[in-house]
Amino acid sequence: MIRRLFIANRGEIALRVIRTAKAMGITTVLGVSSADAASLPALMANETVLLGPGPSSQSYLAIEQVVAAMVGANCDAVHPGYGFLSENATFAKAVAEVGIRFVGPDIRTLEGMGDKLAARALAVEAGLPVLPGGEAATREAVHVRAGQTGYPLLLKAVSGGGGKGMRRVDRAEDLDAALDMAQAEAQAAFGNSAVYVERFVAKGRHVEVQLLGDGTRAIHLGTRDCSIQRRFQKLVEEAPAPAMPAEARAGIEDAAVRLAQHIGYCGAGTAEFLVDATDFSFYFLELNARIQVEHPVTEAITGVDLVEQQLLVASGKPLTLTQAMVRPFGHAIEVRINAEDPEADFRPAPGRIARAAWPAGPGIRVDTHIAAGGEVPPFYDSLLGKLIVHAPTREEAVARLKAALASIRIEGVPTTAGLHARIAADPRFAIGGVDTGFLTGLAQ
Amino acid sequence: MIRRLFIANRGEIALRVIRTAKAMGITTVLGVSSADAASLPALMANETVLLGPGPSSQSYLAIEQVVAAMVGANCDAVHPGYGFLSENATFAKAVAEVGIRFVGPDIRTLEGMGDKLAARALAVEAGLPVLPGGEAATREAVHVRAGQTGYPLLLKAVSGGGGKGMRRVDRAEDLDAALDMAQAEAQAAFGNSAVYVERFVAKGRHVEVQLLGDGTRAIHLGTRDCSIQRRFQKLVEEAPAPAMPAEARAGIEDAAVRLAQHIGYCGAGTAEFLVDATDFSFYFLELNARIQVEHPVTEAITGVDLVEQQLLVASGKPLTLTQAMVRPFGHAIEVRINAEDPEADFRPAPGRIARAAWPAGPGIRVDTHIAAGGEVPPFYDSLLGKLIVHAPTREEAVARLKAALASIRIEGVPTTAGLHARIAADPRFAIGGVDTGFLTGLAQ
Repeated sequence: MIRRLFIANRGEIALRVIRTAKAMGITTVLGVSSADAASLPALMANETVLLGPGPSSQSYLAIEQVVAAMVGANCDAVHPGYGFLSENATFAKAVAEVGIRFVGPDIRTLEGMGDKLAARALAVEAGLPVLPGGEAATREAVHVRAGQTGYPLLLKAVSGGGGKGMRRVDRAEDLDAALDMAQAEAQAAFGNSAVYVERFVAKGRHVEVQLLGDGTRAIHLGTRDCSIQRRFQKLVEEAPAPAMPAEARAGIEDAAVRLAQHIGYCGAGTAEFLVDATDFSFYFLELNARIQVEHPVTEAITGVDLVEQQLLVASGKPLTLTQAMVRPFGHAIEVRINAEDPEADFRPAPGRIARAAWPAGPGIRVDTHIAAGGEVPPFYDSLLGKLIVHAPTREEAVARLKAALASIRIEGVPTTAGLHARIAADPRFAIGGVDTGFLTGLAQ
Repeated sequence: MIRRLFIANRGEIALRVIRTAKAMGITTVLGVSSADAASLPALMANETVLLGPGPSSQSYLAIEQVVAAMVGANCDAVHPGYGFLSENATFAKAVAEVGIRFVGPDIRTLEGMGDKLAARALAVEAGLPVLPGGEAATREAVHVRAGQTGYPLLLKAVSGGGGKGMRRVDRAEDLDAALDMAQAEAQAAFGNSAVYVERFVAKGRHVEVQLLGDGTRAIHLGTRDCSIQRRFQKLVEEAPAPAMPAEARAGIEDAAVRLAQHIGYCGAGTAEFLVDATDFSFYFLELNARIQVEHPVTEAITGVDLVEQQLLVASGKPLTLTQAMVRPFGHAIEVRINAEDPEADFRPAPGRIARAAWPAGPGIRVDTHIAAGGEVPPFYDSLLGKLIVHAPTREEAVARLKAALASIRIEGVPTTAGLHARIAADPRFAIGGVDTGFLTGLAQ
C-alpha cells in the first residue's frame, strides 16, 4: 500500500487528491510554488515542499525539481492530477527511475496515448471506428489527406491536448495558412510541430467514457457529454450523455472497454469520442490517461470515488469493482467557474478574492481551493471551482444548476458564473444533446 | 403558487429554505434579530426585515412581531423551519388570521401532535403499537401508572420536545423527586407542567420515518436512525436505519404511513418510533409536524428536495411523488457540528469564527451558515453546520465520515468535531444499530 503520496499539482485537484488520500490513511506531501505556499491545499496537506517560483516552468513543470522534492520527502508514490506533468512520459520515466510509483498508466501506455496517431492506430486494432484522415508529415501530404477527407476538416497536433495546435479549415484556400498556425502553436505548446488531418463532423457531440482498469480487467463507469466548449475548452459536462438512445450509449461504452482491454489499461482513463448528433454514429478521438477535470459528474451518478480507485490500482491491487456493481443513478452536471472577464472576451482575471460564498444543499457539490482573502495567482489556469449538481432526472438537475449558479457570490474577480447562467437558461440546453457549435448560438 | 415567502427562522435552516425557495422562483424575505443582521442567510435572502433584539423571546419567538413583519413585507406564505415557532399552533392561527399560508400541517394537526397524549391516542386509533403508560394528572396517578409500567420508566412533558421535561426513573423511591424536576422543567420550557409516564426500554433505538402528505395521500421516504444522543439531543443521524431486517424497516414505514393517512397529514412530517434493539419490536413515540434537522440524510438517499416538497404542498398542489418513485440509493450519515466546549462538558461556546474550512468531495454535503469572520451569537443553539456523507454502502459512508471529520478546520470556537471522530472510530458504531445508551460507553 502507498504510505506517503506526493501530489505534483495545485488548485482544486490537489485538494481533491489530498482529501481522498488522507481518508485512506496515506500521508500527503504537496509540492508548491511560492505563489501557492499559503493556499488551501497547502493548509490541508500533511506536509509541503517548495518546488520553486510561481511560473509553472520553474515549479510544477520542472521535472528535476519535482522528482528531487518527492525523493527528499521520502514518498513512495506520486499523483500528478490533470494538466502539468500528468501525461508526460518523460516525467513518468524519471519517477520510475527513482523507484517511486506513478499514479497513472504505465510508460508504454502514456507514450502510446500521448501520440494521437499511435492511439488512433491502437483503436483501429481494437476494432473501434475512427474519423477519416491520418498522418501528414509534409505540406504535400497534408494536401493529399485533405483531398481525401474533404472540407471542413480539422488539423490537430500529434502531441496535442486542450485544443492547442488545433485548427478548423473550411476551404482548400485556407489550408496553408491554417497549417502554419497549427504547426507553430503545436511547436510552442508541445515541442513537436507534427499535425494530422481529420474530417470535421458538422454537428458533432463530444461524448466520453470513464474507464477503470487494473492491467488485466477493465470496466466503464458510463458516459459524459462535454459538447459545450469554447475554443475547444470544455465549459459544461454532464453524466450520462443526454438525449441519446440507450443502445447508442451502450455501443460507445462497449467500444471504450474494448480498447482498454486491448491495451491492458491500468488506472483511471477516459476514452473520448466524437458522436454525430444526427445519427449517433461515433468515432474514437483519444484516450486521456489521467483523472479528468469533469470526473465528479461520474462520481455523482455512481457513488464511486475515482481518486480512491486510482490509488488502489496504483498500489498494485486488482479492481474490486465489477461492471455489475456500477449502477448509475440520476443525472449530474458540472460547470467550471473560472476567474475570467466576460467584458474582455473571457480573458483570465487573476486577483484577490474579497468574498467567496458557494451554494450548498441537496445534490450540490463544490470542489474549490479558493477562500475569501485568497489570491488567484497569474501563473496558472483560472479555475476557481467546479459546481456539480445531481438529481434523479436531468430536468431537476438543470433546475438545481440554475438555482445554484444564482446563489454563487464571488467578489474580487469576475467569473464565468453569468455565462453559465445563460447557458443553463437556453432552451436548447433544456432539451439536451446539443452539439459543439452550441456556444455560437447563445443569446448574449 | 407562493410568490413571497417569509422565513421565520435563522441559521443553517433559514439558508437552506432560502436556497430552495429562490430556486423555485419565490422571493424570500428573512426576519432577522439584530444579532443576525449580517449573517449569511441575511446576505442570501432577497429582503430582510428586523424582528427585534438578539434574545429569541424578543425576536424569533415574538409572535406579534413576526406576524407584523410578514404582513408588512406583503408575504403570502411563511416557512417556520424547525424549533422556534415551527410547531406552535398559536402562531399558525395568528398567521392564518392575516391570510398567510403556513408551510406546515393544518392547525388541527399541530394541536393534535403538539399534545403528546393526544398524538398517542390518534396512533392507537390508527392501530400503531405504543409503549405501556399514559396520562397521570396527579401525583397519585403518576404512582399508579408507575406501578403498571414498572421501572425503569420515563416521565415526559405532554407539550415536550428536544428532551426538555424528560426524566428517566430507575427506582420507585426516586419517582417523587424526578416528577418535581420534570414538571418544573416542562413548565419553564412549554408553559405547561403536565407530564405522562412511559415504560423505558433498556436497549432502545430511535428510528423515525420521513413522511410526505397532501391531506389526501401520504408516502414515506424511508427510515432514519437517530439513536446516538446526548441528554436526549440527537448527535448522529443516518438513513436508512442500519443493522435491521428489511421486514422490520418495512413494518415501521407502513405504520408511519398508516398514521399519516389516518389523520390526513399535509406537508413533511416525521413519525418517531422506539425500537427494541433486541427483537425489533417498535412503539410509536410522536409525530413531528415540521422539517427535521436531520432531513438531509433522507435527501441524500432519495434525491428528493424535502423543502421543495413542503413548498409545493403548501401551495395547494397534490403530491406528484408516488411511493414507487421513491427509490433509496446507498447510505447517508449526518453529524451536527456544534460550537461547544468538550473541556467544559460540551457547554455552548459562542464567539467569533477565525477560520472555517469545511470538507468537500464525492458524497459530501455541508449545510452551514457560518463563515470566517462571522459571529456565533450567544442567544441561540450552537449549531455551526451539518456534515452529511453519502456512499453506496454504510461501510464506505463511515469511511467518508471519518475522513471528512478529520479535514474540518474551524478556529475561534471549540467544536464537537472531535467527539464525532471518536464516535465514528468506535467499533460498535462500525457494526451499526447501536442503542441510545451508546454514548455512555464511548472511550474518552
